[in-house]
Amino acid sequence: MSDLREIGAIMEPMGRAALAAAAVLARTGSPRKDAALNAAAGAVRAAAGAILAANERDLAAAAARNVGHARLDRLRLDAARIESIARGIEQVAQLPDPVGRVRASWERPNGLHIERIAVPLGVIGIIYESRPNVTADAGALCLKSGNAVILRGGSESERSSRALHECLVQGLEAAGLPATCIQLVPTRDRAAVGYLLAGMTEYLDVIVPRGGKELVERVQKEARVPVIGHLEGNCHVYVDRDADLSMARVITLNAKMRRTGICGAAETLLVDAGCAATHLAPLVEDLLAAGCEVRGDAQVQRVDARVVPAREEDWYTEYLDAVIAARVVAGVDAAIEHIARYGSAHTEAIVTANAATAERFLSHVDSAIVLHNASTQFADGGEFGMGAEIGISTDRFHARGPVGLEQLTSYKYVVRGSGQVRP
Amino acid sequence: MSDLREIGAIMEPMGRAALAAAAVLARTGSPRKDAALNAAAGAVRAAAGAILAANERDLAAAAARNVGHARLDRLRLDAARIESIARGIEQVAQLPDPVGRVRASWERPNGLHIERIAVPLGVIGIIYESRPNVTADAGALCLKSGNAVILRGGSESERSSRALHECLVQGLEAAGLPATCIQLVPTRDRAAVGYLLAGMTEYLDVIVPRGGKELVERVQKEARVPVIGHLEGNCHVYVDRDADLSMARVITLNAKMRRTGICGAAETLLVDAGCAATHLAPLVEDLLAAGCEVRGDAQVQRVDARVVPAREEDWYTEYLDAVIAARVVAGVDAAIEHIARYGSAHTEAIVTANAATAERFLSHVDSAIVLHNASTQFADGGEFGMGAEIGISTDRFHARGPVGLEQLTSYKYVVRGSGQVRP
Repeated sequence: MSDLREIGAIMEPMGRAALAAAAVLARTGSPRKDAALNAAAGAVRAAAGAILAANERDLAAAAARNVGHARLDRLRLDAARIESIARGIEQVAQLPDPVGRVRASWERPNGLHIERIAVPLGVIGIIYESRPNVTADAGALCLKSGNAVILRGGSESERSSRALHECLVQGLEAAGLPATCIQLVPTRDRAAVGYLLAGMTEYLDVIVPRGGKELVERVQKEARVPVIGHLEGNCHVYVDRDADLSMARVITLNAKMRRTGICGAAETLLVDAGCAATHLAPLVEDLLAAGCEVRGDAQVQRVDARVVPAREEDWYTEYLDAVIAARVVAGVDAAIEHIARYGSAHTEAIVTANAATAERFLSHVDSAIVLHNASTQFADGGEFGMGAEIGISTDRFHARGPVGLEQLTSYKYVVRGSGQVRP
Repeated sequence: MSDLREIGAIMEPMGRAALAAAAVLARTGSPRKDAALNAAAGAVRAAAGAILAANERDLAAAAARNVGHARLDRLRLDAARIESIARGIEQVAQLPDPVGRVRASWERPNGLHIERIAVPLGVIGIIYESRPNVTADAGALCLKSGNAVILRGGSESERSSRALHECLVQGLEAAGLPATCIQLVPTRDRAAVGYLLAGMTEYLDVIVPRGGKELVERVQKEARVPVIGHLEGNCHVYVDRDADLSMARVITLNAKMRRTGICGAAETLLVDAGCAATHLAPLVEDLLAAGCEVRGDAQVQRVDARVVPAREEDWYTEYLDAVIAARVVAGVDAAIEHIARYGSAHTEAIVTANAATAERFLSHVDSAIVLHNASTQFADGGEFGMGAEIGISTDRFHARGPVGLEQLTSYKYVVRGSGQVRP
């Protein structure tokens, strides 16, 4: 591991450059930022060959290290994924600029006119693994919201990230913006991550971790600046006694199986004892038929021999796989209690035709997202209409739920008077 | 200093109790919270004698330790201050409840209806010094916003704080709420503060320090939970070449001298070279005549022999006294640069009749509050119309500027559907 001074010699200038770039970006209007984004998208398309070649070298190195299939897949780029990256950058350019928006305005009895106006957060640190596209996605979102960004990707996608970063820089320079608006930490040294987390408090306003649980845990533990993110998405679907059975089946299957590896995938199914006689078996059989392993309590086990006995830890577990925990509970209050005890405050859904029961669930469940009669897989910035997201937060401070452009801003108060003084 | 385990044995149960109380408060409607506040105000009035007696004992102990006059004054309660505390609690009860407010709502193309709804932050830790009224003020604001609170006051106001806390508990119990909604750390042990800052991450959502620079610095350095607050209010008044002179004089004098000890007091006067010939002398003479020491650059020194030469550190200094630094700058851009370099991102004002110059200042100056043609002393939650404030934040995350009830809340998303699943 490198000497702290060596790391500092690399990171400190990056921090200072980011601060300077942030000051420029704070005063940069939408047209110039969008021009940079669109030019970057064009650069990505033009450099597709070079990006793929860099990616090949990353893949070869990973294969030589016997990296598993799923990880190789996260690492891999192809022509379609590169086009998707380019299009994603252009889509960010199309989004409304969050900076400068008047979030609230009012007049005081003494005639002062007060506005709360959105401003960039400043400098954002993004620490991520495997997926090279984060370089472009996160870089674009930060730029659009007027923030300078320092990116630190996974070492296995280093060449791919660097190739993409070069395209972003080309876009910045084409629009007359400092290249240092988007910086990529140039070292594989793991000490760089620790330095970002604890040694850059003068420069960073927030850190966003994008990756697996181990990474997020480390960031939350060591960071000395605010962190936006979530550790776990242990999401629940509660099927109430007044749930329409076919709606419950469609929602449950989608919530678990549409994509099992995303944070909004349902990990526990709770079925009201009041409808278990009619609803439980169809729900469980649907899941089994779709290839999902079901780990259930005693009552759920009696539905089908393929149901595995659930243990206490299963109620806490985020499987990110075709596995679900299932339990029969005594009504909505028991469901609320179960979620409060075992959940991760991410996303929970209730299926019911009873409006009062729905309202009780929606108001009592303290998660970032609560849904009535819809799938937990809607826990996504795009689905929310934010256009894009940099992640989902389960914290309560600053941002909760999908983190889009608006959440990457702060605000200031602009007060207009005509000579007022305070008595 | 007590054993860590001893402190833990006191603090951990408080944390658990606060979490449980927060869960109750999150579901408690305005009428009950207001009933508790009004009953607490009544209890304060009824116990005025006992509170004053406790305060007398605190004052006697402080005087015996030769505590200075200003500190004794912050410590002192009298009949008027007690009535003011009671009335302050009642005023908080009158404020609109921030919890449950729909901050945004929209419909998606697929028919999902999404609402962003305010919820309490959860558990707030308040660490403060000298002033016993913070026990009541902060306690009331946290309760109104649905948060449980753990208060840790200064040891010199311990008896006064305890007497006030008892009144708050009476109010809670009268309204049928858990007494643990508002807890007072019962020990003088300084280790309790360290434990609150770093050992209660499971329980606290945020910490608010109320006190001098040393306390705030310690909190910002050691806290392992988010902190809302500010370190310094090094506020500026910039008098532009197009400033109306009499408006500039009135604003400058008010900004510096209305109350010199508050964070919104102006600490540096910047005068545009373009109007120095006509504006500088009257501004400086006004301040000197009001008993304010002026520390100025060479040009300011030439106005009056009483002007003290300013040193580099004066531009950084928050005097909290009848002292001001004064400098002539080359126009609005130079003022913006000076503020960016020396300021604390708190509150800055420009006096000018030139709309374009004003807009440039307002958009380029990156402070929590920027004012055009008004005094910096308006940097206050009450003046902003928030009804009350728990402090002012110069951070960029979660809350910036005056921190009122709304800033003591988080939010969640409530999504209503009719069976939608994600494609």
